[in-house]
Amino acid sequence: MDEFLKKRLITFLTILCLIACCGSVPKVEARVRRYKWEVKYEMKSPDCYKKLAITINGRSPGPSIVARVGDTIIVELKNSLFTENVAIHWHGIRQIGTPWMDGTEGVTQCPILPADTFVYKFVVDRPGTYLYHAHYGMQREDGLYGSLRVLLNEGESEPFQYDYDRSIILNDWYHNSSKQQSFGLSSIPFVWVGEPQSILIQGRGKFDCSTPGTPTALCNASHPECAPYAITVVPGKTYRLRIGSLTALSALSFEIEGHNMTVVEADGHYVEPFTVKNLFIYSGETYSVLVTADQDPSRNYWMSAKIVSRNSNTTNGLAILNYYPNHPRRDPPTTPPAGPHWDDRRPRLAQSGAIRARRGFIHPPPQISDRTIVMLNTQNNVGGYRRWSINNVSFNMPHTPYLIAYKHNLLDAFDQRPLSDGHDFTTYNISAVQTNPNATTSNAAYRLKFNTTVDVILQNANTMNPDNSETHPWHLHGHDFWVLGYGVGKFDATKDAGSFNLVDPIMKNTVAVHPFGWTALRFRADNPGVWAFHCHIESHFFMGMGVVFEEGVERVGELPSSIMGCGHAKGFYKP
Amino acid sequence: MDEFLKKRLITFLTILCLIACCGSVPKVEARVRRYKWEVKYEMKSPDCYKKLAITINGRSPGPSIVARVGDTIIVELKNSLFTENVAIHWHGIRQIGTPWMDGTEGVTQCPILPADTFVYKFVVDRPGTYLYHAHYGMQREDGLYGSLRVLLNEGESEPFQYDYDRSIILNDWYHNSSKQQSFGLSSIPFVWVGEPQSILIQGRGKFDCSTPGTPTALCNASHPECAPYAITVVPGKTYRLRIGSLTALSALSFEIEGHNMTVVEADGHYVEPFTVKNLFIYSGETYSVLVTADQDPSRNYWMSAKIVSRNSNTTNGLAILNYYPNHPRRDPPTTPPAGPHWDDRRPRLAQSGAIRARRGFIHPPPQISDRTIVMLNTQNNVGGYRRWSINNVSFNMPHTPYLIAYKHNLLDAFDQRPLSDGHDFTTYNISAVQTNPNATTSNAAYRLKFNTTVDVILQNANTMNPDNSETHPWHLHGHDFWVLGYGVGKFDATKDAGSFNLVDPIMKNTVAVHPFGWTALRFRADNPGVWAFHCHIESHFFMGMGVVFEEGVERVGELPSSIMGCGHAKGFYKP
Repeated sequence: MDEFLKKRLITFLTILCLIACCGSVPKVEARVRRYKWEVKYEMKSPDCYKKLAITINGRSPGPSIVARVGDTIIVELKNSLFTENVAIHWHGIRQIGTPWMDGTEGVTQCPILPADTFVYKFVVDRPGTYLYHAHYGMQREDGLYGSLRVLLNEGESEPFQYDYDRSIILNDWYHNSSKQQSFGLSSIPFVWVGEPQSILIQGRGKFDCSTPGTPTALCNASHPECAPYAITVVPGKTYRLRIGSLTALSALSFEIEGHNMTVVEADGHYVEPFTVKNLFIYSGETYSVLVTADQDPSRNYWMSAKIVSRNSNTTNGLAILNYYPNHPRRDPPTTPPAGPHWDDRRPRLAQSGAIRARRGFIHPPPQISDRTIVMLNTQNNVGGYRRWSINNVSFNMPHTPYLIAYKHNLLDAFDQRPLSDGHDFTTYNISAVQTNPNATTSNAAYRLKFNTTVDVILQNANTMNPDNSETHPWHLHGHDFWVLGYGVGKFDATKDAGSFNLVDPIMKNTVAVHPFGWTALRFRADNPGVWAFHCHIESHFFMGMGVVFEEGVERVGELPSSIMGCGHAKGFYKP
Repeated sequence: MDEFLKKRLITFLTILCLIACCGSVPKVEARVRRYKWEVKYEMKSPDCYKKLAITINGRSPGPSIVARVGDTIIVELKNSLFTENVAIHWHGIRQIGTPWMDGTEGVTQCPILPADTFVYKFVVDRPGTYLYHAHYGMQREDGLYGSLRVLLNEGESEPFQYDYDRSIILNDWYHNSSKQQSFGLSSIPFVWVGEPQSILIQGRGKFDCSTPGTPTALCNASHPECAPYAITVVPGKTYRLRIGSLTALSALSFEIEGHNMTVVEADGHYVEPFTVKNLFIYSGETYSVLVTADQDPSRNYWMSAKIVSRNSNTTNGLAILNYYPNHPRRDPPTTPPAGPHWDDRRPRLAQSGAIRARRGFIHPPPQISDRTIVMLNTQNNVGGYRRWSINNVSFNMPHTPYLIAYKHNLLDAFDQRPLSDGHDFTTYNISAVQTNPNATTSNAAYRLKFNTTVDVILQNANTMNPDNSETHPWHLHGHDFWVLGYGVGKFDATKDAGSFNLVDPIMKNTVAVHPFGWTALRFRADNPGVWAFHCHIESHFFMGMGVVFEEGVERVGELPSSIMGCGHAKGFYKP
């Protein structure tokens, strides 16, 4: 090499090194956002009824995380529960490159022991409306949840206008503990959790303390924690309302009296705008809607959340849209909207179908898939226990996290027999009462070839009760999927696959499967890790309604020691 | 050495070897007793009120362990709680050579995670009446307890006669969960657990379902689980009744209507017999009493347990002494005995003093001690929290078990500063309301020189309420101690030490410290390990009323891997 070339090379390498070390033309400066959270019990009265809740820093919902695209979130989570472990899932964050930070006990990490501090660290790589919540047993129901909002960076703008940005989380609320519910669900005879005692809007609801059998010492109708949530709006202004649902059970219809809502975002993706009077929202979903305060400004308006798809006697959840300068505690002069009929499926299906990717922001799906997994969702009795099954296999969570088991070749940590891509599908009558008692339980996983395209057809069916089929919101960890289509009845590969929307399907991480219907989705198995895919109804997943996908686990880097310490990985923690 | 002597030596060594290898003249054949236990939730109605209890194999009290001296107990304990860990202590078993099997979370082991199976294995080296119970947080109160009875071997006999052997455990019962109670105790403002809702005799009590505010759905006066416990006796026969108390809070007086009881055993040691109408029993104690069915055989008799030492409104616990062939469910025709006045301390102190070692079975105590630790028990406010303190230091449980920390030299796992052997004692006024807010918390341990004799003077005092001092039953793990004496008022080393009973003191593992009084005990620090010593009132220990003793930890063999996996020992588990 001559001297000139040598010098050029050195200069080049120096520049390269500088770029690598100092960051190349930093378009945005990614921040690190640190949070110190203490998970602890508190007596809470979110619906006027006192209950031991699991809180973060004393709050339920927990503190909201607000970040910008590219930021690194660091949550130092200290478990101050006395005898109980915990794990927190960052719902909607794909955890690209950090599959061990997904927070799913049994799948991506060991539970966090009392007195331990676990550090969650991940990048929020995409704007949008997300959630977080416990992902261990049924702890989410004890109040351990909150919102995670990722904003565009300064100078970037959304494809729609609004003046202010507000978040609310919808939830349903039980008075008994998640332990009591878990116990009932896993008992013979089966004890169903029943309908929730109330619907919470941003952690506030109203249980009627005069309900017969209510201990007076536990219920206080004027408890400040159950004063209705109010959003104050300035007349004429437009609000982006980020609505997430983390209900344990309930499908909801949300509406704001006298106001239309324009849907613009779903699960972090821009939606081709459409306007609704009421928004159907299923557990695990998030939406952004635009609402303009364009009504009579001399009064307040009800916001209402009603249970649909189940014939529930739970009172609608109510909050107040407060027109400034009216007093935020002033009840609207009108009767709250009654909401749609619980059993009218048509508008729900229509709204699901109306959600398309926004023009200019379409991520075109692969036109063909490499593998199709048909998942027949059924309710079964397995050995006397009431369970939910996928293709007649009811999911059991192992206690050696799959991610660790795969990386460390712990083959006896769970069932290695492959699961079926479709079972008994052609002959199964989805309209008949499920009578098959021969389902089995398994903790086997689906192994997906890395970088392939996978279709999942979620097929609903009649439950074990006559003329009954439920709504199941399925949530996929680590990915967004394209929603290719919905249908009523049994999926017909020949006919229905031809009707898939391959032009502008929305991408989501949670999607509803409507009663007696099917939902088709497609995703790329391009995120090395192990990912849960399950019905987001807390009791349904607990009863086996889920699966686990492994993809490209050989590409996953060294697992952090902090996720170790349980099951077959008990000895894997290295300080 | 001449040939003859050589041959003799070889013969001698051969015989010695044979004896060592094959066991020398096996007087008894020690058995291995295996138990498979599943710790799980169950809805239980022990006092007619439904509560989520923690059970063993569905039972609370759990299965009784009955073994013979020298047997090895193996309990394979599977944790089937959903999100909660567990640990079980074998109360009264000294764990000589197996200090890691004591089952005390934070002291001798890491908690057992959900889905994990932990194998407890230890030898019961001494006959007597023992107990087991959860030793993690306040889980004992959720129902996780039972009895452990060690019998003499065949051919051996007790120094007293009886025809039948029966066990009962006394307990008190709360309707709220241990989590709710723990939360209240560790809150500002402090929420006291209050008096128990009922007293259970062998897991059965009776809460009055008509108590105002009782949800009818939860209380069923005719629930079979709350039918009174009955012991059937044959007229003329003598019964050994083994009575243990595992109350969360209550000191009890137990009596059997119309029957005297002859006390013959306490905490595994023979008592010089004495006869009582009512037995005072404190949490953590066990007694054997002999009762002869010598009353009118045409009827049944009440057994009654009444709270003493606290002005409680809890109804006495009742059970039935059933004279065969009367129906065991037939209520006695009489009013149950009212029991002694709750605040009459004199008979309690007298009964404590009456318990002496049985002639012929006296273990003479060392006549002098090497160290005296005076432990002033006070109630304090520490940083706004209500706590109990020993010498102004309130105990905090660390979450790296001491035993592991000492063996592995994890010096930062807990406070290394030595604790005081007596603090401010001469000037402290035990009769005045405690006003000192300057107590501190610590998790430091007392280090005892191995094979030394240690005296502990437990000094009671006024609480933070005027004219109030409580009864504290202190329990020592890993040892029995000699009870050298009790006194009223402040301990006076010059005067009171001279009155110590060094002739026939009883050995016990749990002893009461009476209101405004002191109790002196002596033990040999001869059991290598780390041992908790604490008030057996569940809430008091939780609030800091305990210490930890380390002795001869350098002599402890290699710790089993199964106790590892938490705190600083998270990575110490080796499969």
